[in-house]
Amino acid sequence: MQRGPQPADFTDVRATNLAVVLRYVRSHYPCSRADIATATGLNKATVSSLVVDLIDRHLVREIGFTENRIGRPATMLTMDGSPYVAVGLEVNADHLGLVAVDLVGAQVLAWRRSFAGLESTPSQAAAAIAALSRRAVAKLVKDGRRVLGLTVGVPGLVDAKGTVKFAPNLGWQEVDLLETLGRALGEPDFPVTVDNDANLAVLAESRYGSHAGTENMIYLTGQIGIGAGIISDDRMIRGSRGFPGEIGHLTIDPGGALCGCGRRGCLEAVAGIGALIAKALPDSAYDGKLTDLQPEVDEVVQRAKAGDKVTLAALDDAGHALGNAVSIVANLLDPAVVVFGGYFVPLAPWLLPPAQQELAARSVAPQECAQIVASTLGYSATAVGGAAAVLDFIDAGNLPRP
Amino acid sequence: MQRGPQPADFTDVRATNLAVVLRYVRSHYPCSRADIATATGLNKATVSSLVVDLIDRHLVREIGFTENRIGRPATMLTMDGSPYVAVGLEVNADHLGLVAVDLVGAQVLAWRRSFAGLESTPSQAAAAIAALSRRAVAKLVKDGRRVLGLTVGVPGLVDAKGTVKFAPNLGWQEVDLLETLGRALGEPDFPVTVDNDANLAVLAESRYGSHAGTENMIYLTGQIGIGAGIISDDRMIRGSRGFPGEIGHLTIDPGGALCGCGRRGCLEAVAGIGALIAKALPDSAYDGKLTDLQPEVDEVVQRAKAGDKVTLAALDDAGHALGNAVSIVANLLDPAVVVFGGYFVPLAPWLLPPAQQELAARSVAPQECAQIVASTLGYSATAVGGAAAVLDFIDAGNLPRP
Repeated sequence: MQRGPQPADFTDVRATNLAVVLRYVRSHYPCSRADIATATGLNKATVSSLVVDLIDRHLVREIGFTENRIGRPATMLTMDGSPYVAVGLEVNADHLGLVAVDLVGAQVLAWRRSFAGLESTPSQAAAAIAALSRRAVAKLVKDGRRVLGLTVGVPGLVDAKGTVKFAPNLGWQEVDLLETLGRALGEPDFPVTVDNDANLAVLAESRYGSHAGTENMIYLTGQIGIGAGIISDDRMIRGSRGFPGEIGHLTIDPGGALCGCGRRGCLEAVAGIGALIAKALPDSAYDGKLTDLQPEVDEVVQRAKAGDKVTLAALDDAGHALGNAVSIVANLLDPAVVVFGGYFVPLAPWLLPPAQQELAARSVAPQECAQIVASTLGYSATAVGGAAAVLDFIDAGNLPRP
Repeated sequence: MQRGPQPADFTDVRATNLAVVLRYVRSHYPCSRADIATATGLNKATVSSLVVDLIDRHLVREIGFTENRIGRPATMLTMDGSPYVAVGLEVNADHLGLVAVDLVGAQVLAWRRSFAGLESTPSQAAAAIAALSRRAVAKLVKDGRRVLGLTVGVPGLVDAKGTVKFAPNLGWQEVDLLETLGRALGEPDFPVTVDNDANLAVLAESRYGSHAGTENMIYLTGQIGIGAGIISDDRMIRGSRGFPGEIGHLTIDPGGALCGCGRRGCLEAVAGIGALIAKALPDSAYDGKLTDLQPEVDEVVQRAKAGDKVTLAALDDAGHALGNAVSIVANLLDPAVVVFGGYFVPLAPWLLPPAQQELAARSVAPQECAQIVASTLGYSATAVGGAAAVLDFIDAGNLPRP
């Protein structure tokens, strides 16, 4: 009984159509009012009125006439949006990352600050996050920008109120980050939200990644923990409490390595980056402590390139385990693309072939199965996704006021 | 770049608001125009105009004045809709089921016909399905009804064109059922669609089940095969090719029983109704052939009630295996309710406790986990869901013409 559209009125129609025209201009600039009318099916008078509104809001601007057409030359439109930025910030065990993105997707700020996640109390962490945000906002405002919103990504379970229920890699439990952050930022004039890191990363992939626009896409974080962000039929899966995507404790090998959760053979214990390094570099000093693993990952890449058999076998095992886990998600959700992110990206040449092979072998549907690819967004997918979440809110019809 | 609303115009607004008012009246009849205006936020003049339209379409009618109010008595409205019916038909290995449901959810027809699924060629099957549909439509029309649509549910992978790509329990592969059915029905004046059985069953649960209205719900079919229908954030999961919910070949016990798919320990091979009967009734003549299993299921219930240890152990094992599988889906999708259907319903008193225990033990989120319940819709959930799919289409704003 519950499904179906909600009551609409003419104000909604206008807000919707403003967002439709803005999205069209962003994807097709430079373009004319006639182009917009043709592509959207809105009539020309409506388009003209909407464009006036978008120009007033400094979202779109005119750039003179085009020459390449028959008949009267048309005034062309392009994105303005220069005053606006969306900010994303990601919290990791060893660093904070922050990006600011303008309306056409250009990064106007990209900061990285070291951060002792596990040694900080939640209120120290909130203070550090707030301090970085404040500095970034101050700089952006000084540069003449207007901040549309800030989204903070956390590797853990985040409920709808912005409370981090559980973030093992930060040692957090029941931390009301959004409230603490709101106080530390002092009533900012833009919306602030907190979300799960994998959720934000899949938003980033869906907007800016190599397979942007794919309507059924899954992103796997490649960290000590493995989480999944899921976009299904063009919408992010949120679940009943906000805790979907918990793929890390799928049992892959019931007799396998002991996991931090107390069971054996969980995906994280078999193919998480910590487990992978321990097997690929049996002689390394890596002791399982949560820290920056880049040097170890670089060493794995070097040994794999040199043909080291132990390293190659560890990568092959991890790839098969990841493919097994992906096959479970793929049989349940039928995605077109699965993106491996984080530390899995530099290891992709060795992880992807066995993963794809395992996925194909375990797919129930007889047709061709999902494609596994490596992220092209580097280590800041979550922060970029935080900015993308702000832009999605704008795209849904919540345009900034003139 | 792809997300966001689509262009809207004033015709859309009216269609949307007609559907909103119709849904309100269905949930709250008898009610007045003022009640509708208050609840929906639409102004009274708009509501009055919309109600005239709904009365013209015989969807709503007036039933005189209410006495129980202060001030001028209001004319009360109730559902009319008596001329309209939605038809659902389910294809099983041993029978066809058909139901017709009116706009307020009353079943005006419920037929069951034996059907030799595996012995029929696809065109014989389509002919049988078409014949049953034609007879039902003729009877409904004779009774003064107008058929809004027909949805056929099939236990298999169905693509967006209504082609059954693969239905092992019917022995079908690449059967263009919708096209064949369209020809056999001869250009009907109502829309006909074909869908997966679990998808339709979860729609039925979401509209008429004991937990109707739950926005995150999963339905497990309890047949020889086990499939899942998924509603996430109030929308059915469709996937990139239309093949989600394939939970039956999840590896639950890598060293377990051989599955029809060639691997060991798949959920179906461990906890499908065929596997369960074989273990619970080791002395029975059940030979694994696909047929009506009701007598065997009744016998399992009797022995369980009598405390037979072999039967109880088999049910306990199956319950744990089902809970393990549910935990995987629940960690990925965070549903509030998981409904066990089909043959699992009479066995629920023994399957649910171990399943719920296994789910709790394997849930990653520290809060209370999803609730597992038995379907209250009996064996015809798929057929009822077929009718519900037609009504969902109406609810989305596609009202019948006056």
